[in-house]
Amino acid sequence: MGRTSDAREKIITAAQTLIEQRGYSALGVAEICKAAGVPKGSFYYFFESKEALALTVVDEHWAAQRREWTRILGADAAPLERLRRLFEATEEIQHAGQQSCGTVSGCMFGNLTLEMSNQTESIRGRLQEIFDTQVGMIDEIVTEARERGEVAVADTHAAAASIVAQLEGQVLFAKLYNDTGRLSPLWTNCLAILGVTALPQAVAGA
Amino acid sequence: MGRTSDAREKIITAAQTLIEQRGYSALGVAEICKAAGVPKGSFYYFFESKEALALTVVDEHWAAQRREWTRILGADAAPLERLRRLFEATEEIQHAGQQSCGTVSGCMFGNLTLEMSNQTESIRGRLQEIFDTQVGMIDEIVTEARERGEVAVADTHAAAASIVAQLEGQVLFAKLYNDTGRLSPLWTNCLAILGVTALPQAVAGA
Repeated sequence: MGRTSDAREKIITAAQTLIEQRGYSALGVAEICKAAGVPKGSFYYFFESKEALALTVVDEHWAAQRREWTRILGADAAPLERLRRLFEATEEIQHAGQQSCGTVSGCMFGNLTLEMSNQTESIRGRLQEIFDTQVGMIDEIVTEARERGEVAVADTHAAAASIVAQLEGQVLFAKLYNDTGRLSPLWTNCLAILGVTALPQAVAGA
Repeated sequence: MGRTSDAREKIITAAQTLIEQRGYSALGVAEICKAAGVPKGSFYYFFESKEALALTVVDEHWAAQRREWTRILGADAAPLERLRRLFEATEEIQHAGQQSCGTVSGCMFGNLTLEMSNQTESIRGRLQEIFDTQVGMIDEIVTEARERGEVAVADTHAAAASIVAQLEGQVLFAKLYNDTGRLSPLWTNCLAILGVTALPQAVAGA
């Protein structure tokens, strides 16, 4: 039983790495199994199809990222300070990825959106759910900051969606130029989108 | 001679459609030739490789888009008004694409960035040049607006890069949700990034 579940994990880990490096379309099941070091017969014991594996990879990646977002955004600090830390963490994760594999791999969800969303409705649906949740999480912070009189936006949900769009756009450029420095304007732009002109002391000092 | 150049154009047109629909990795030369209605032998008469074709498709697409950007951004109107028209034109193009093929296809350059930039250095280089030029074109407008005292940014180039990132991020969501309405916050966010609090009459009326 230990070995069986090892094989499943190995397939998922190999697929995650390969999808981050080369996208989804170009991958074959044989190649994934070879990278995972498991016989091809095992694959269909665990996964119905390559698409089913991709959904599992997306789900596991999001489960981990969501825990991290929840930890950062739920911390004991002013709302805008928590938002700032989220951008810092994003930059650190992209930087660590670049150090370990030589290139900025970007956001798996953004990558798959542009590669796959018009081809596979199941993947489109899952990615929509993930981005909806991300926008919802940012919306909560923006709403909290507005209640404290720290931001000036009429529609917190639209502002949150624009912040996530800004994040995806800057991550796209970090990947294109292989330069995590491209992420540094995120915080300033976020404040601009939120109509923040004067920051509370705790956040401004960062 | 007429027929020869027809074949080249047919290959480029078919490849552009297929790349927009399904990305680059998943395509094969045989499939492109079949869609173009030309014998596979013709392909290598015109293109050294699939990569060479992709670069040609990117160049032709950018040549057309650049003409459009130049026309809009060079028009006889206030700088911010020209920028607003660029966003409107982007929304219209995405909407027209959705009407004709059922789905929002997004930005070919953004799509290829997330799919290909870590795999093919020639494509990465070409996409960098294109985005550098786009940022430069927006920078000129922002600089002009700043000279007129209409925007309040210290670094016009950084602001222009953030505007293009915002555009790419919102186009990504328009594609994911197959909804060009996702592009409507572009102008408001652009003004926020530019630190515009009061618009000149000609632009505000839009």
